[in-house]
Amino acid sequence: MHYTEQSHTFRKIIMTKRITLADVAADAGVSAKTVSDVIHHRGRMREETRERVRNSMRALGYTTNLAARTLRTGSAKLIGLAIPNFAQPFNGNYADIVTSYAWAKGYRVSITTYHRLSQGLRELSADAYRFGVDGWIFLTDTPIPAQDNFLNQDRPVVLTGDYLSHGVADTIMFPNVEASQTATTRLFELGCERIGFIGAPANADSLDVTTQQLDAALTAQEGNSAMRLRGHLTALLQHNRSPLPSLVGACTRLDRSDGEKATLRLLDAGAQFDALFCANDAVALGAMSALTSRGLRIPEDVQIIGFDNTPDAAFSSPRLTTIDPFTEQYAQMAVDCLISRLEGDETAPTVHITDFALIERDSTRH
Amino acid sequence: MHYTEQSHTFRKIIMTKRITLADVAADAGVSAKTVSDVIHHRGRMREETRERVRNSMRALGYTTNLAARTLRTGSAKLIGLAIPNFAQPFNGNYADIVTSYAWAKGYRVSITTYHRLSQGLRELSADAYRFGVDGWIFLTDTPIPAQDNFLNQDRPVVLTGDYLSHGVADTIMFPNVEASQTATTRLFELGCERIGFIGAPANADSLDVTTQQLDAALTAQEGNSAMRLRGHLTALLQHNRSPLPSLVGACTRLDRSDGEKATLRLLDAGAQFDALFCANDAVALGAMSALTSRGLRIPEDVQIIGFDNTPDAAFSSPRLTTIDPFTEQYAQMAVDCLISRLEGDETAPTVHITDFALIERDSTRH
Repeated sequence: MHYTEQSHTFRKIIMTKRITLADVAADAGVSAKTVSDVIHHRGRMREETRERVRNSMRALGYTTNLAARTLRTGSAKLIGLAIPNFAQPFNGNYADIVTSYAWAKGYRVSITTYHRLSQGLRELSADAYRFGVDGWIFLTDTPIPAQDNFLNQDRPVVLTGDYLSHGVADTIMFPNVEASQTATTRLFELGCERIGFIGAPANADSLDVTTQQLDAALTAQEGNSAMRLRGHLTALLQHNRSPLPSLVGACTRLDRSDGEKATLRLLDAGAQFDALFCANDAVALGAMSALTSRGLRIPEDVQIIGFDNTPDAAFSSPRLTTIDPFTEQYAQMAVDCLISRLEGDETAPTVHITDFALIERDSTRH
Repeated sequence: MHYTEQSHTFRKIIMTKRITLADVAADAGVSAKTVSDVIHHRGRMREETRERVRNSMRALGYTTNLAARTLRTGSAKLIGLAIPNFAQPFNGNYADIVTSYAWAKGYRVSITTYHRLSQGLRELSADAYRFGVDGWIFLTDTPIPAQDNFLNQDRPVVLTGDYLSHGVADTIMFPNVEASQTATTRLFELGCERIGFIGAPANADSLDVTTQQLDAALTAQEGNSAMRLRGHLTALLQHNRSPLPSLVGACTRLDRSDGEKATLRLLDAGAQFDALFCANDAVALGAMSALTSRGLRIPEDVQIIGFDNTPDAAFSSPRLTTIDPFTEQYAQMAVDCLISRLEGDETAPTVHITDFALIERDSTRH
C-alpha cells in the first residue's frame, strides 16, 4: 500500500509493541534491506519507493531507530530556542515568530526555558544532546562572560537578547540606544519637561539609583535595560537636562509588578514628572497601573512610552505608545543566521541590529 | 582535580574539536575504561570517582556519546510539552509552571508548539524521536477523534486542554461548567439583569449564534469555550432567564482581538447588557477594550468576569474579576500523572478536575 502524507490523518495508530524494521518493510511492501538503505541514505531506488518507506516509518512510529539515524546523520533539522521563561510577554511572542519563520525554512523548533537551571544558559549549552537540536538560538537576559565564553562550542549558537558575544557567535540586537533616544526626544516634542525612566538596571543592594550610576550608564555597551537607559540619558543631555536620580526607577525583573512598584516608589518619594519612558512594555503597563491607582491621568497628567510593541500594548487602557523594535525582523535574522551556520557558513560572526519605529497610541498626546 | 557542581561556573570551556572519551579520562584523571564504566552504569568504584567523571563529561561538553547513552538507557528524564502557540497569555504561564514543577521532580521540559504542523498534535505524537522526550503533556485546543485516537501510542501522554481522551490517556480538566455557573450566578447576586457571554464556539459559516446552538450547548461534554458557555446558560436557566442569542458573542481564537470584535458586534446590533461573562481573560480584556472605546464604564455600566486568572488580569484597568481555575494545581496534576506513568503506573486512565475560586477585583462591583 502507498500512503500519502495526507492519508495518515485517517489511519488508526494503536501501538502495543516496539515497531521493528521488519514491520516497516512489511507495511511498505519492500525488503528489510531497502528500509535500511533508506535509513542510511544509501542504495539505489526510485524516489517514490524511498518516500513510501519514509511514510511507513512515520505512520508506524518507527522511533527508536530514527533517533539512532538522527545521531548518525547529525541532523534532525531541529533548532533549539532557549529563553529565560515566559514571564515577559515578549518571550512567547518571540517564540511564536521564531517557530513560524523556522518552519517556513524547513526547520522545527524545540523551546526550552533555563531559569530553573542553576547554571542557566551554560547548562543548556552543554546539554544539547538531551534536546537533539542542531544549533541554538539563545535569548539571554544576563551578560556572557568574555573570559569564559560558553557560546564557543561545537554547535552553532546565535545570541539574541542584547548582550555581547565577544566575537564568538552571531549576535542580533535591538537598536536600544537609538530607539530610546528617539522615544525621549519625542516626549520633549510633545511638550514634556520632566521625563522619568522606569526600568534602570538594579543595584544589588538598593533600588535607589545614584548620580554615579547615571554617569556610568552613558557608556553601557550591552543589556537592554542599560542600553535603553543610555539612549534616554543621551536625549536628556541633548536637551540640556541633567539626569536626575530622583526621576529614574530601577527594576530587577522588568515585569509589570516591577514597573508598578518602581513607579510607586518614585511617586512616594515625591518625584515630579510629566512623562515616563519605560524599559519595556511590561514595565510600562505596570507603571500605568501605578499612576491610575494614584489618580493620575494618562496622557493628561503623565505621558508614557514603552518598548517592544508586544501584543498587549495595543489592548491596554489607554493603548500604549511604544517603540516597535521589529521583533519579526529580529527573529528572522536569528533564524537566518543559524541556518546559514548549520549549512556551513564559516565567515566571522557578525552583529546584526534591527530597524525600529515609534508607534504612537493613546498614552501620549496626539 | 575534583570539580564540584558550583566550580563549573568558573571553568573556561572553549571547544575547537569533538571531545573524546580519552579527553574525559585525562580531565578526570582516570582510565578510559573507568569513563566507559560510568557511562554504562557498571563497574565498581567510589561514588566520588563516578561523580568526578560525570563532572568532567559535563564540563567538557562530552555530548555525542551522552546522546548515545540516552538512547541506550531509553530515558533522558525529559518531558515534552506541546501547546498550540503562545498567542494565549495562559499558555506561557502554563509552560512556566509545568517546567518549574517538573524540574522540582527531577525532569526537564522541552516545549513545542504545533499550530504550524499540518496535522497538529497528531504529527508531534508520531515525531517524539525528534525531541527525545520520554512522554508528552499535550495541551489541545481541538477535539481528539475517538475513532482515530492518536493518544494511544507507545509513549505515555497526559491530555490537558479540556478535551476528552475517550479513556485512552490521563486527562486533566478545568471545572469549566461549575466555575462558569458560579461566575454568572455571582453577576446575578451583584444585581445584574441581562448577562451576556463572549467567547462561544464559532459556527464555521457565521459568527451569529442561533437558539438551536444555545440549546445544544447545554449538553456540551468537552471544549473550554463550549463547557463555559454551558455553565453560563445553566446559571441563566436557574435564574429563570431564557438564553438569548443576541447576548452571546462567538469567537474563533479566543484572544483579545476576538473578544474586542465580538463585543463590538453585540453593541452594534443594539444588544442591551449590564454584565459580560467571558470565556477567558484574553477575551475579557478585549471586551473591556471594546466597551471603553464606546464610552461604557466598567463596572458602573457593565460588570465583567473573565476565566483563567492569567497574570495580565491583575494589571488591567480596571483590574479584572476572574475565575482562578488553579492553573498551578492543573499543571502539577499533569506532571504527576505523566511521571507516574513513566515510572510504570499501569492503572486505568483517569480524569482529574481542578478546584477553582472566584477572584473579585475591580471589573465587578464590591
